[in-house]
Amino acid sequence: MRNNLYVLKFGGTSVANRERIEEVAKIVISYIKKGINVVCVVSAMGDTTDRLISLAKEISPFPSEREMDMLISTGEQVSSALLAMALHKKGYDALSFVGYQVGIITDTSHTQARILKIETKKILDALRKKRIVIVAGFQGATEDGEITTLGRGGSDLSAVALACCLKAERCVIYTDVEGIYTADPRLVKGAKKLRYITFDEMLELAFLGAQVMQVRAVEVAKKFNMPIEVKSSFTRKEGTIIMGKTKFIEEPEVRGVALTENEAKLTICNVPDKPGIAASIFTELAKNNINVDMIVQNVSHKKITDISFTVPKNLLSKAEKVSQKIAQRIGATEVLSDCDIAKVSVVGVGMRSHPGVAAKCFSALAKRKINIEMISTSEISISCVVRKKEGKKALQVLHKEFNLDRIKK
Amino acid sequence: MRNNLYVLKFGGTSVANRERIEEVAKIVISYIKKGINVVCVVSAMGDTTDRLISLAKEISPFPSEREMDMLISTGEQVSSALLAMALHKKGYDALSFVGYQVGIITDTSHTQARILKIETKKILDALRKKRIVIVAGFQGATEDGEITTLGRGGSDLSAVALACCLKAERCVIYTDVEGIYTADPRLVKGAKKLRYITFDEMLELAFLGAQVMQVRAVEVAKKFNMPIEVKSSFTRKEGTIIMGKTKFIEEPEVRGVALTENEAKLTICNVPDKPGIAASIFTELAKNNINVDMIVQNVSHKKITDISFTVPKNLLSKAEKVSQKIAQRIGATEVLSDCDIAKVSVVGVGMRSHPGVAAKCFSALAKRKINIEMISTSEISISCVVRKKEGKKALQVLHKEFNLDRIKK
Repeated sequence: MRNNLYVLKFGGTSVANRERIEEVAKIVISYIKKGINVVCVVSAMGDTTDRLISLAKEISPFPSEREMDMLISTGEQVSSALLAMALHKKGYDALSFVGYQVGIITDTSHTQARILKIETKKILDALRKKRIVIVAGFQGATEDGEITTLGRGGSDLSAVALACCLKAERCVIYTDVEGIYTADPRLVKGAKKLRYITFDEMLELAFLGAQVMQVRAVEVAKKFNMPIEVKSSFTRKEGTIIMGKTKFIEEPEVRGVALTENEAKLTICNVPDKPGIAASIFTELAKNNINVDMIVQNVSHKKITDISFTVPKNLLSKAEKVSQKIAQRIGATEVLSDCDIAKVSVVGVGMRSHPGVAAKCFSALAKRKINIEMISTSEISISCVVRKKEGKKALQVLHKEFNLDRIKK
Repeated sequence: MRNNLYVLKFGGTSVANRERIEEVAKIVISYIKKGINVVCVVSAMGDTTDRLISLAKEISPFPSEREMDMLISTGEQVSSALLAMALHKKGYDALSFVGYQVGIITDTSHTQARILKIETKKILDALRKKRIVIVAGFQGATEDGEITTLGRGGSDLSAVALACCLKAERCVIYTDVEGIYTADPRLVKGAKKLRYITFDEMLELAFLGAQVMQVRAVEVAKKFNMPIEVKSSFTRKEGTIIMGKTKFIEEPEVRGVALTENEAKLTICNVPDKPGIAASIFTELAKNNINVDMIVQNVSHKKITDISFTVPKNLLSKAEKVSQKIAQRIGATEVLSDCDIAKVSVVGVGMRSHPGVAAKCFSALAKRKINIEMISTSEISISCVVRKKEGKKALQVLHKEFNLDRIKK
């Protein structure tokens, strides 16, 4: 590990304009003054990426993905150069690079590329010369020199992957929130900022709709055990550290609750209960690139059962069509869709060893007359589908039930 | 020569918005339909480059040139990708590339880089697959992969250099004017579009303020004898072809007149007339990167002379300071500066063999009581400095005198 090396990532709101970029330069310099070497990863300014995408959509409803990457990768190049200029003005030596220049090699899946490797030589050379290195986030290049981007939130991934390959001491994600909370503070009064959270908990929360960090970035950090600090570039308060193991001997059972309203429920009714039927349904959905979240199959009566599952709302109509075809083929009678649902989840690695979390969860909701329509559980999370209009209330009930408003760390 | 290959360059106004980009796609397709292979070079959309420069200046009055190149090279990347999308939408196969991807290798002079070589393999491969190749203009990369730009008007240079290295049949510069005129049509009623003009004439006119094409691009075209057609992407009318030799047995003596108002005059007064004095003055100015245009030294009286010269207005204050130092050192008495001048020029390769063009020029101005303050001549041009307020009139007088309003070709 390089003890004195930090990778700092600044999101779009953190570099939205001149003032913000100058503020970011100050943050970077505060690390340099402590004797820390810095690699910065920056996102595009404010809504630049969205603006570029709508430019493309004006010209073509389905623009080529290769050309989309050529187009949208420019946003980060602009903000990187501007940050370098801001650091120069304050008397610090800095160099900006785009993805291909620092050897961020990806596969060829344009707009959703995966990082294969990072050739760190150029960055390490610059750091050795005591330069601040700035890398345009969100992008890389194939072995052939084709420009690629890493998908939404890809700058998080750039930062974490660089931190891992450079063996940095820490990766700091500067954003517009102060850290990870026990619940979305806009929805739950009394939501508390956590000082520590594990990778696993963060992954559950990220999947479950707490949109602070990109899921793939957390997965990579977990794989390389790279500690991440999430904090605000606006307030500079202490943030949340995401790490492999927290410092506490006894974990609190639940660390956070989350609400998702962007899923819809599909039910295939009266499915003949034969071996392999579920497999054939979900294989077909996967083939059509429909990612299914929760799946519930009720016990069957007279060799007939209902299978319900949730999909992202934007894939609902596609999922409906596919499901109808499947229903016909397997002899099911009907496909029902329901957009009017919300999913609440409780997350915490402590659950593993604290029995009764599920029971506590269900009875708290029952006590408030909130009906549970679907349940799914993992080792560290429990999710319940409820009516959409009851989602927010359910979130608040669970937050209170597990005393998250009084959590200390 | 590749008979069926054209390089087409589209300037900033030609790709200023969605409509313009779609119009450019139509122009490109019209060549493809004739069985011509096309390499497009595009500038940044409209005022993008200026916008990026002012973003930089907001942050730093003297931004690093390396970072400026990182910043401003994005403009052409955006328009290239958008043109590719527009061609895809119309059912044509196209690929956009940035400078480094197609091996446009330059020296390391950021913001003013010179092209050293172009590795044409990638482009030729794509052309062989019947793809339309789009190259971001104005940019290249050093051998080390640092992004460079070629200076103002650099996309013209990209296009001409590509045409030469690819051994194209022709380079077509699409712009917002219809071609090269005998004079600026905004200043001279009756200015006529020329169908042909030689490289040498074009170079004189470009230097002299007819800002249709970048000078360096014309120089390269001349060196490789690459015919250039300048035409409008708005009207699609026949343009002007710039070439080594025109088709006519007898050249008309004068082909065009030009007016420049962006020069200023400096006079170092009472210079001791000793050998080597002029050399020392202009060596010192060159060392300070001040490019001098016209130089006039009067015959000396009593071993004392005045030396006058013109410099670009934006370098005047710098040139004044340098001149004052020189004056002190060589024992001259005074440095006078004059911003209130204009330069009119007549250009034509025919002059070489038509005596009396200079006399005709001077007497036409004299007849209209326009006083000539400085004169300089080349083999194919004559320039006169006059009072600024008389510049436009002088231009019109000369245009009429040489019957340019009745020129045929």
